[in-house]
Amino acid sequence: MLKKPLPIYQKIHELSTKAALFSGISMLLEWDQETFMPKGAIEIRSKQVELIASLGHKEKTSKEFAQALSQLIDLETGALKSDELTERQAAALREWRRDYNNAVKLPSSFVEEFANATSAATHAWAEAKSKNQFKSFQPHLEKIVALCRKKADFLGYKDHPYDALLDSFEPTMTTKVATVLLERLKIPLTDLLKKICTKPAPDTAFLHRDYPHDKQFDLGKKVLSAMGFEKKYSRLDESAHPMCIPLQPFDTRMTTRISLNHPLMNLLSCVHEGGHGLYHSNLPADCYGSPLGEAASLGIDESQSRTWETIIGRSLPFWQHFFPILQETFPEHLGAVRLEDFYKAVNIVKPTMIRTESDEVTYNLHIMLRFEMEKGLIEGKIPVEKVPEEWNQRMRDYLGITPKADSEGCLQDIHWSLGALGYFPTYTLGNLYAAQFFEVFTAKHPNWQQQIAKGELTVLSKWQKENIHRYGREYLPEDLCEKITGKPLSEKPFISYLEKKYTPLYHLGTMLT
Amino acid sequence: MLKKPLPIYQKIHELSTKAALFSGISMLLEWDQETFMPKGAIEIRSKQVELIASLGHKEKTSKEFAQALSQLIDLETGALKSDELTERQAAALREWRRDYNNAVKLPSSFVEEFANATSAATHAWAEAKSKNQFKSFQPHLEKIVALCRKKADFLGYKDHPYDALLDSFEPTMTTKVATVLLERLKIPLTDLLKKICTKPAPDTAFLHRDYPHDKQFDLGKKVLSAMGFEKKYSRLDESAHPMCIPLQPFDTRMTTRISLNHPLMNLLSCVHEGGHGLYHSNLPADCYGSPLGEAASLGIDESQSRTWETIIGRSLPFWQHFFPILQETFPEHLGAVRLEDFYKAVNIVKPTMIRTESDEVTYNLHIMLRFEMEKGLIEGKIPVEKVPEEWNQRMRDYLGITPKADSEGCLQDIHWSLGALGYFPTYTLGNLYAAQFFEVFTAKHPNWQQQIAKGELTVLSKWQKENIHRYGREYLPEDLCEKITGKPLSEKPFISYLEKKYTPLYHLGTMLT
Repeated sequence: MLKKPLPIYQKIHELSTKAALFSGISMLLEWDQETFMPKGAIEIRSKQVELIASLGHKEKTSKEFAQALSQLIDLETGALKSDELTERQAAALREWRRDYNNAVKLPSSFVEEFANATSAATHAWAEAKSKNQFKSFQPHLEKIVALCRKKADFLGYKDHPYDALLDSFEPTMTTKVATVLLERLKIPLTDLLKKICTKPAPDTAFLHRDYPHDKQFDLGKKVLSAMGFEKKYSRLDESAHPMCIPLQPFDTRMTTRISLNHPLMNLLSCVHEGGHGLYHSNLPADCYGSPLGEAASLGIDESQSRTWETIIGRSLPFWQHFFPILQETFPEHLGAVRLEDFYKAVNIVKPTMIRTESDEVTYNLHIMLRFEMEKGLIEGKIPVEKVPEEWNQRMRDYLGITPKADSEGCLQDIHWSLGALGYFPTYTLGNLYAAQFFEVFTAKHPNWQQQIAKGELTVLSKWQKENIHRYGREYLPEDLCEKITGKPLSEKPFISYLEKKYTPLYHLGTMLT
Repeated sequence: MLKKPLPIYQKIHELSTKAALFSGISMLLEWDQETFMPKGAIEIRSKQVELIASLGHKEKTSKEFAQALSQLIDLETGALKSDELTERQAAALREWRRDYNNAVKLPSSFVEEFANATSAATHAWAEAKSKNQFKSFQPHLEKIVALCRKKADFLGYKDHPYDALLDSFEPTMTTKVATVLLERLKIPLTDLLKKICTKPAPDTAFLHRDYPHDKQFDLGKKVLSAMGFEKKYSRLDESAHPMCIPLQPFDTRMTTRISLNHPLMNLLSCVHEGGHGLYHSNLPADCYGSPLGEAASLGIDESQSRTWETIIGRSLPFWQHFFPILQETFPEHLGAVRLEDFYKAVNIVKPTMIRTESDEVTYNLHIMLRFEMEKGLIEGKIPVEKVPEEWNQRMRDYLGITPKADSEGCLQDIHWSLGALGYFPTYTLGNLYAAQFFEVFTAKHPNWQQQIAKGELTVLSKWQKENIHRYGREYLPEDLCEKITGKPLSEKPFISYLEKKYTPLYHLGTMLT
């Protein structure tokens, strides 16, 4: 039974909502910058972004907030101080405390230094990438690595400094657990890749024709509409990098990128960002401003987008519904293509230099490489100057290819310049959560393929809302995983998913007998 | 010679720039709301708007700012306290003092009450307008009028409470001066209108055909580009009401409205908003955050938009250049139309119910009506319940037509619901400034018509930048007018402009002989 919220709980929620308002404004500034802002506006815009970020931080670390919070929870021990709290309220307090303690651990002088360093590094990275000169980025990366070590010291850790970084993106995840999971992926993935590479590659020529921009964009909107998005509460726009910017419960903004000679880029981006978007728009709106109205973690968030992009968006049933629509939209391009050939082309497996262009089999090898590099950098075992060399060696080891230039090698991602060491593993965690959650979904909805094939995509989003979205941060990621699947996170469902899918697709079964 | 800025002047400028950053964020929230925001987002968005407005107000009225300011200028008397100031710096301090004194005159409890009342009134107005029920808006308007009287008392005035309201939109303008100017327009305008109404109306049928949306929008962009706008620093979008939102010196956003069967709606909106936009983008960027980087007044701002919309945008030379482009874009609609007939259609004079749809001759009669109503409301001589009656009587007196419903009468404008009594007269002041400034421009550029006819629109914008824009608020509106034209503001140039234009257009000369 619902208890009446305590006045002090309401006060905490109100103060926290003010911080959420700032965060929503920050996101609007970002969304605008990535979509419509005239380029010349960047200098003053950056000052606005800084101003709002600092106000949000002030709000989250204010004395008033700490005092209110500490009336209901001991900020040091985490012990609850009231027995009138519901379980959900207790969970919200636990998360508020986590956020508050993390926020105050970083002195504002450090936050400022970090912001300045990453701002300079981001510019240097873009320049270095375009000119393909790692050397000019190197001093920035050295600074970033040193600051990340410092950040780990401020945040504190038990076993490994990388734990602190990881935990800031994926609460309670440790280097040890992540290492085990990723190590267990290595052999199955490289083996599967090797087997696939012995088989003839599917024909994808029909994908690389000139697909008109506006028709592509309209199709993206159609897919999102089928996923359940309404115009009243969401938008789709274009940006250089597809993203989901969940401004607030009633305003979910997604962006896509349209490549004229690769329509899957747009369609799968829409499905991916739509997966994030569904999560955020299904979070309980009455909890806006509290942790119960936020995504459980980056990994869980990514699991939702990857479920949609890969398990659904690259599945046969999905295309049974959407391929005929595609054919109708682009009769000259696809009228003569068979569904099964299209499905094969969608699922081509092939080592690529670029993580964001990689397939389901190789994607996590890209992450493994980055995870190992980051650990090495933080431990000091990999000196920054050796980054290109170490990167390229791992590309050879895991994917059998060597970048011709750092721009398609260690300079391809923006993450390090943003100081986001510890972020990459959440992508793989997302893939693992996705597969493990999906097993539960299929057990509950054994006919899901028929429904998806009819375009009834909400069979999945409804299940996600009921079993994942509505909880917000009530459960820690590991507890949420246990609650949904009855087991701790494992690599097995993911491996099994890949094998079941790619064995028939690439006729690997016959090869193995 | 430029003096080195005093450190304390720089500090004032820095603090003031922070307020400008908030104001730019407010404008982005507004721009987004009017263009792209999903409708469902309004509730949380309103809270964000409120939050930023209150932070901006805090910044402008902070003790730190007042202390810094009062080191260089006496806040009470306005006497300067340093002899190391340039003239421009002295002017900036004069305006900072004006803004500060006005801002602190309104107690925050009043500001809040005013904001709540206008927020409720705006909703009530929209509802009342759509249902055509003045009665449901009446109590809101009563409240607004009472609050505006209170506002006048807080701000202070010498002769008339309306002075205070007027001054808050048009610094140093008084009820007396505005009354004289508007009264002097009344007879010439109504006489001119009567004469024109005896003549046959030009054919406008070709304007009311189905003009495709996208081509119209592209044409609007073309016109703005000819005015000198660059993609790097500006945007054009669509909204229900055309507007110019100058986010900052390097980001000027304009919106237009496209009516499928009236292409002039879009084109003249673009030219009008472009006129505002040029002013704001030509303000000195190094003065961003100081009054020297702001428009002199609403009236001066409107003079720039009206110069472009009417004196240029409805001129023969403008269409000598753009009509062939229009014909090329819409050959089926306009291929057989002659330039002179198009020009006549653009300048049709005809009493209309709606101010924003009115022509150059009748526009100021609409303002006159509103000005008289507002004075009557503030003086208490017009009770709010009599508003529809008084409105309709004046429509008959000045324009010879009677609104069939309040939605096309006293409920047509949003201004009163926003509490903006005192705003309307700035529209007419804008028209008068425009004509008076333009006389100076034509004396300096006697060949302007040939240049405009060649599409060289920058002949005007360059002159405006040099003679108006670059000063920001260095001169008070009346002083700026003297500086540019050597005379105080007068209705004569405007009347003379109208007579010179419409006598040949409607063959009034022959009628009078």
